[in-house]
Amino acid sequence: MSKKLIGSCIFGQSGGPTAVINASAYGVIRAALDAEEITHVYGAAHGIKGVLADKLYVMDEEDPKELELLLHTPSSELGSCRYKIADPEVDDTDYKRILEIFKKYDVRYFFYNGGNDSMDTCNKISRYMESVGYECRVMGVPKTIDNDLFGTDHCPGFASAAKYIATSCMEIHKDASVYDTPMISVVEIMGRHAGWLAASAALATEYGSGPDLIYLPETDFDMDKFIEDVKAVYERNQGNVMVAVSEGIHYADGSFVSEAKTSATDGFGHAQLGGLATLLANIIKERSGAKVRGIELSLLQRCGSHLASATDINEACGAGMEAVRQAVSGTTGKMVAFKRVMVDGKYTCEYELLPLTAVANYEKKVPVEWINETQNGLKHEFIDYVLPLIQGEPEIPREDSLPRYAHLKKVLAK
Amino acid sequence: MSKKLIGSCIFGQSGGPTAVINASAYGVIRAALDAEEITHVYGAAHGIKGVLADKLYVMDEEDPKELELLLHTPSSELGSCRYKIADPEVDDTDYKRILEIFKKYDVRYFFYNGGNDSMDTCNKISRYMESVGYECRVMGVPKTIDNDLFGTDHCPGFASAAKYIATSCMEIHKDASVYDTPMISVVEIMGRHAGWLAASAALATEYGSGPDLIYLPETDFDMDKFIEDVKAVYERNQGNVMVAVSEGIHYADGSFVSEAKTSATDGFGHAQLGGLATLLANIIKERSGAKVRGIELSLLQRCGSHLASATDINEACGAGMEAVRQAVSGTTGKMVAFKRVMVDGKYTCEYELLPLTAVANYEKKVPVEWINETQNGLKHEFIDYVLPLIQGEPEIPREDSLPRYAHLKKVLAK
Repeated sequence: MSKKLIGSCIFGQSGGPTAVINASAYGVIRAALDAEEITHVYGAAHGIKGVLADKLYVMDEEDPKELELLLHTPSSELGSCRYKIADPEVDDTDYKRILEIFKKYDVRYFFYNGGNDSMDTCNKISRYMESVGYECRVMGVPKTIDNDLFGTDHCPGFASAAKYIATSCMEIHKDASVYDTPMISVVEIMGRHAGWLAASAALATEYGSGPDLIYLPETDFDMDKFIEDVKAVYERNQGNVMVAVSEGIHYADGSFVSEAKTSATDGFGHAQLGGLATLLANIIKERSGAKVRGIELSLLQRCGSHLASATDINEACGAGMEAVRQAVSGTTGKMVAFKRVMVDGKYTCEYELLPLTAVANYEKKVPVEWINETQNGLKHEFIDYVLPLIQGEPEIPREDSLPRYAHLKKVLAK
Repeated sequence: MSKKLIGSCIFGQSGGPTAVINASAYGVIRAALDAEEITHVYGAAHGIKGVLADKLYVMDEEDPKELELLLHTPSSELGSCRYKIADPEVDDTDYKRILEIFKKYDVRYFFYNGGNDSMDTCNKISRYMESVGYECRVMGVPKTIDNDLFGTDHCPGFASAAKYIATSCMEIHKDASVYDTPMISVVEIMGRHAGWLAASAALATEYGSGPDLIYLPETDFDMDKFIEDVKAVYERNQGNVMVAVSEGIHYADGSFVSEAKTSATDGFGHAQLGGLATLLANIIKERSGAKVRGIELSLLQRCGSHLASATDINEACGAGMEAVRQAVSGTTGKMVAFKRVMVDGKYTCEYELLPLTAVANYEKKVPVEWINETQNGLKHEFIDYVLPLIQGEPEIPREDSLPRYAHLKKVLAK
C-alpha cells in the first residue's frame, strides 16, 4: 500500500457513445465521491477537451438519485470528444495546459473512459505527468462497442450492442419472411476493423430467427463468392435470404467494399463508413432481380440502453469503481481489464490491471478459428463466448412508459 | 340472439407486419378454439392467398402454450400477403374459389386481420357470400401501424410502433448530442399518407430527449422553409439539430419529397418510399456545411415487439376475441373498432362495431388542429391522444435473454 494521495479527481468520457459508458461514469463518480482521499469530483465536459477548456462539472453538487440514473442513460452524459492529442515529445502545448488545470484544481486522480484512442491519450498524460514530476494517478476505464481492446476478454458496451443487434435481427428476420414472395435483406452492422458486432447477429440465428449469411472484416470479401452464397440460400429457402455484414468488410487489396460511397474522415483518420447495406442490396438486385432491402442498424445499435445487458451494466459500473479503488490504493498507468473465469461451467468476470502502454492502439479481432470454413458465418465457439455477456434484463427506470434518463445540474467548477 | 351457426372458421393476416398482429391472431384463435359453435380453426397461409391455394394450417393441432407466445411474437406468423382482390362484379374467379374452399372445410366464419385494403377484401367477400346465399359470418380485425383506419380511435400496432419510435428517438437524441461540434440528424419514420408515426417522435421531445422539428404529410412540405427551420434551431442549439420526418412528406403539388429516389411500386399501386433521410441530410449538408446524419428507422419500427406497449397487446388480443364473440352471436360484415372512454380522467378502451363498408379505403389523418402553427411540430393535444396508448411493459418471454417466439407446427389441413 503506497502513501495516501489526497486531492481532486477528474473523470472524462471519450470516443463514440455506448449504452453503458454512463454506467462506468456512475461507477467512477460514486466511488470517487465515497473515497476519503478524493476531495472533489469533477466531470470533464467533452473529455480531454473540457480539461483543456477549463470546463469541469462539479459532481459533488449532483443529486445522488440522478447520478444513479446514469446506470440506464445511454450515450456520454458529460459529452465526448474525438480529440487526437499530440505526442508530448513533438508538441507539449496540450500537456502544459492540462498540468495547469490539474494544479488549479489540485487534481491528483485522472480517470479516462474510452476505447483504443482514449487509452493512448491516457497513456500519454500519465507519462507526461511522471516526466514533470507531478504526482497524479491515471487510470483507464475501457469502453467500446467494437470490443477490440487488447488484453481484456471483452469491453463494456459491446454486450449491450450485441444484444440489441441480436434482438433486432430476430425481429427483422420475422418481418422479412412474412410474404411468400422472394425477399433478400441486407443488414449493415457497425465495426470498422473488428467483426465482433456483426458476428453477434449469429445469436439471432442460433435462437431461430436470424441471418443466413454473416460477413466480417476478419476475412477478405469477394463479391462473386458473396453473390454465389446469396444464390445458394435463395434456392434453399424459397427466395428468403437474410445477410448481415460488418460495415468494415473489405476486398483482398484492403479497400472497403463501401469505399465508393464515402469520403469524409473523422478526427483520427478513420474512413467514415455507411450506406453499405444499400450498396450490396442494389448489387444483388441487379444480378438476381429479386426484391431486396438494405437496413442499417445505424447508431441505434450503440445507444440502445432499453435493451442493455444487465451483465454489461454491472461490469461497466464495476470497472469504474475498480479504477477508483486501485488508484487510491496507489495504482497508476493502468487500464481495468476483464478476465473471464468459468466456475463450474458458469461465467464470472474478474478485474485485472493492464499497463496502458500494452493496450493503446492495438486492435483485437474475432479469432479466425471462430469463423466457419466458408467464411460466411460463425462457429459455436463464438456463441459460447458472447452468450454469457448479454445475460440479464436491467430494471429500466421509466416515466409514463418512456425511459427516464439522468438529469444532471452540471454546475461548472470555478 | 340469432340462430346458432355451426361450422369451421378461417383466420387470415394481411398487409404489413406489426408488433401485435399476432396478438390479434392469438385472440381470434384462442376464442375460436373455445367457442362451441366453431368446429375447426384454420389459419390461412399468407392471408387470402392461402385460402385460394387451399393452404390452411390446423390451429386445433397447435400446443396451447406455443399459441400463447404469439402475444409476444412480432410480424405475421401465418404469413401475410398484399393481394388485391377483384371486384366480384368485374371478375368473380377468386370468389368462386373461396366459396369452393369454404364449402370444402364447412367454413362458416371468416376473420381477416389487416388495414384498409384488407377491410376492403373482407367487405367484398362478405357481400359475395351474401349474394350467393352461402351463410358465413365475416368479421374484420383492425391492424395497422399507420393508425389511419377510419372510425376507430386508434389501430392495433400503432401504439407499439409509436413507443418504439419515441424510445429510439430519445436514444438517438442522446447519441447525436454527444460532441461539442455541430451535428444535424434526420430521422425518417414510416407513414405514406398519415403522419401518426412521425408525430409520435414528439413523445421523445415531451420527455426531454427528442427532435426539434417534425414534419408530417398532413401539411405541404416546403424545402426553403425547412432549411430556414433547421438554420434557426442550429443557431439556437449551438449546432445541434434533430429532425423527424414522415416518409410521406410531399410538396404542395402532391409529389413526394423522396420521389426522385424511388420507382418500384407494391401490389396496391403505392409508391415504395425510402432513402428520404439521406436525401434531406445531403441537402442540409450542401446548404449549411454542417455534419449531418440520416437515420432510417426502417422496418424495425413496426416489428419491435421487445418494446411493445402492453396496452396495445391487450387491445389487439381483445379485438380478436371480440370479433369471435360477436360472430358467434350473429354479427357479420363488421370491423371491431376502438372507442376511447375517459373515466375519471383515466383512459379506457371499449369495443364497437363498424360496418366494413364504412371503413374500407378511407384514410384517417392527424387532425391539422394538432399540428403547430409553424407546421414543424405537434401540439399537446397529440401527446394527450397518444400517451395512454403506449403504457405498460409486457413480460417478454425470453430464452437466454433473447426473445422466445412462438414455434407453430403448421399442420396442413386436408
